[in-house]
Amino acid sequence: MSKLIRFGISMNEQLLEKFDRLIVQKGYNNRSEAIRDLIRSQLVELEWADEDQEVAGTITLVYDHHVKGLSDLLTDLQHDFHDLILSTMHVHLDHFNCLEVLVIQGKAGDAKKVAEKLISIKGVKHGKLSITSTGKNI
Amino acid sequence: MSKLIRFGISMNEQLLEKFDRLIVQKGYNNRSEAIRDLIRSQLVELEWADEDQEVAGTITLVYDHHVKGLSDLLTDLQHDFHDLILSTMHVHLDHFNCLEVLVIQGKAGDAKKVAEKLISIKGVKHGKLSITSTGKNI
Amino acid sequence: MSKLIRFGISMNEQLLEKFDRLIVQKGYNNRSEAIRDLIRSQLVELEWADEDQEVAGTITLVYDHHVKGLSDLLTDLQHDFHDLILSTMHVHLDHFNCLEVLVIQGKAGDAKKVAEKLISIKGVKHGKLSITSTGKNI
Amino acid sequence: MSKLIRFGISMNEQLLEKFDRLIVQKGYNNRSEAIRDLIRSQLVELEWADEDQEVAGTITLVYDHHVKGLSDLLTDLQHDFHDLILSTMHVHLDHFNCLEVLVIQGKAGDAKKVAEKLISIKGVKHGKLSITSTGKNI
Repeated sequence: MSKLIRFGISMNEQLLEKFDRLIVQKGYNNRSEAIRDLIRSQLVELEWADEDQEVAGTITLVYDHHVKGLSDLLTDLQHDFHDLILSTMHVHLDHFNCLEVLVIQGKAGDAKKVAEKLISIKGVKHGKLSITSTGKNI
Repeated sequence: MSKLIRFGISMNEQLLEKFDRLIVQKGYNNRSEAIRDLIRSQLVELEWADEDQEVAGTITLVYDHHVKGLSDLLTDLQHDFHDLILSTMHVHLDHFNCLEVLVIQGKAGDAKKVAEKLISIKGVKHGKLSITSTGKNI
Repeated sequence: MSKLIRFGISMNEQLLEKFDRLIVQKGYNNRSEAIRDLIRSQLVELEWADEDQEVAGTITLVYDHHVKGLSDLLTDLQHDFHDLILSTMHVHLDHFNCLEVLVIQGKAGDAKKVAEKLISIKGVKHGKLSITSTGKNI
Repeated sequence: MSKLIRFGISMNEQLLEKFDRLIVQKGYNNRSEAIRDLIRSQLVELEWADEDQEVAGTITLVYDHHVKGLSDLLTDLQHDFHDLILSTMHVHLDHFNCLEVLVIQGKAGDAKKVAEKLISIKGVKHGKLSITSTGKNI
């Protein structure tokens, strides 16, 4: 773990009051953690803007497993990218609908391509890439 | 399954060419599926804008499991919301960092509150709510 | 002007280094201003989430002025909302395309409705609502 | 103007009903225009993802004109980028706060840099880049 550094920032009283109200509402215990989260969110976006940066993320897919051949196709495609997809979890939402989450780690550019490939498949009703970090640099 | 309806849309040639190039790049086999995906994405956003709407989604958390008490706190909090959190998956990213994905289902307003509560915890480096649908209405 | 308050925040060295690099890249002179901007951006989003909140913003429209009746329709509609639309600026992008920016001030809910109304008009190729603040509370 | 092409798309009845309700709510007169807008929005995002692409956009700045030297600094900086900034409009929001909109046209990468430079200035309370198109390719 790297060492902790403390520094001062200034803010006019009115803005600080607004901020304090906001972070209480969001469940933060103190300003430091809320500010660190704002900073880390921005850094994660920056990491994903660089195609060659090592990142982590999730791909969420909602689909109807009754669509003929869909489950097999999804499995096949995921195996083609087994080096990027760390693991998956499957939830049976109702009689028809499945939700599948894939945890991915690798280069940002590759991760986006896998996401597009899976989301564009016919029968996948909704797909979404959610970006996060490997945690190494934040 | 509801029945399939076919209807015509018009577009100038130049825009259609741009669109055709875009969807090939994203991996779509035909225009219909690409357009349905655009529509469904917008409907999902609309569902989440209504606090009382039944939705599905995922919460991704990246944290350092060496932070004292953090794992227990996360488990305790998740149990407080066991009716919203369907299941979770845990990935060991490296010696320090964990990635946890929670699949949630429930009212959009409640889902957002749980996400804020978990993301604001000290030690959670990065957290993200990813919105999707139960699949019932799309 | 409300008075200036100074307070301390802590951050591990590694995160602070990343942050310092980010803000130099974005042109900030010091950490305080970069952090204040992160906070104000979040407050502006919060203001716009409340339909009754007094906000400011801009609506940008790109359209082809050769489309019959379009300019008149846009002018008529804007006059219907003259209490929300403070002023407009028009740029001739090329022989065909116009860009018009409208500065709006009023309740967030009303502002969104005007934006949707203008953006959905046939002939408006692209429209976008950009949210900002009246500056009073930040 | 390029010629108009008509093609068919298919959708299940349930999704189509949801879509029809959505577009009425947004003010569209027909499905074609709503779908074209979805497509054009995605194309505009794609254009801005390419640093060398010719784009148009607006930068909105809210600032307190009482901050010493701020107005001059903003004017000076804008002149440094006169080839990118087509024109500006200024609105006096109240005794303290100004809203300024700049219409920009040029390469996406340059436009982003100008936006960052202006938004990061101390005294600019809130700044936002809003992306749109020159209209040429959509």
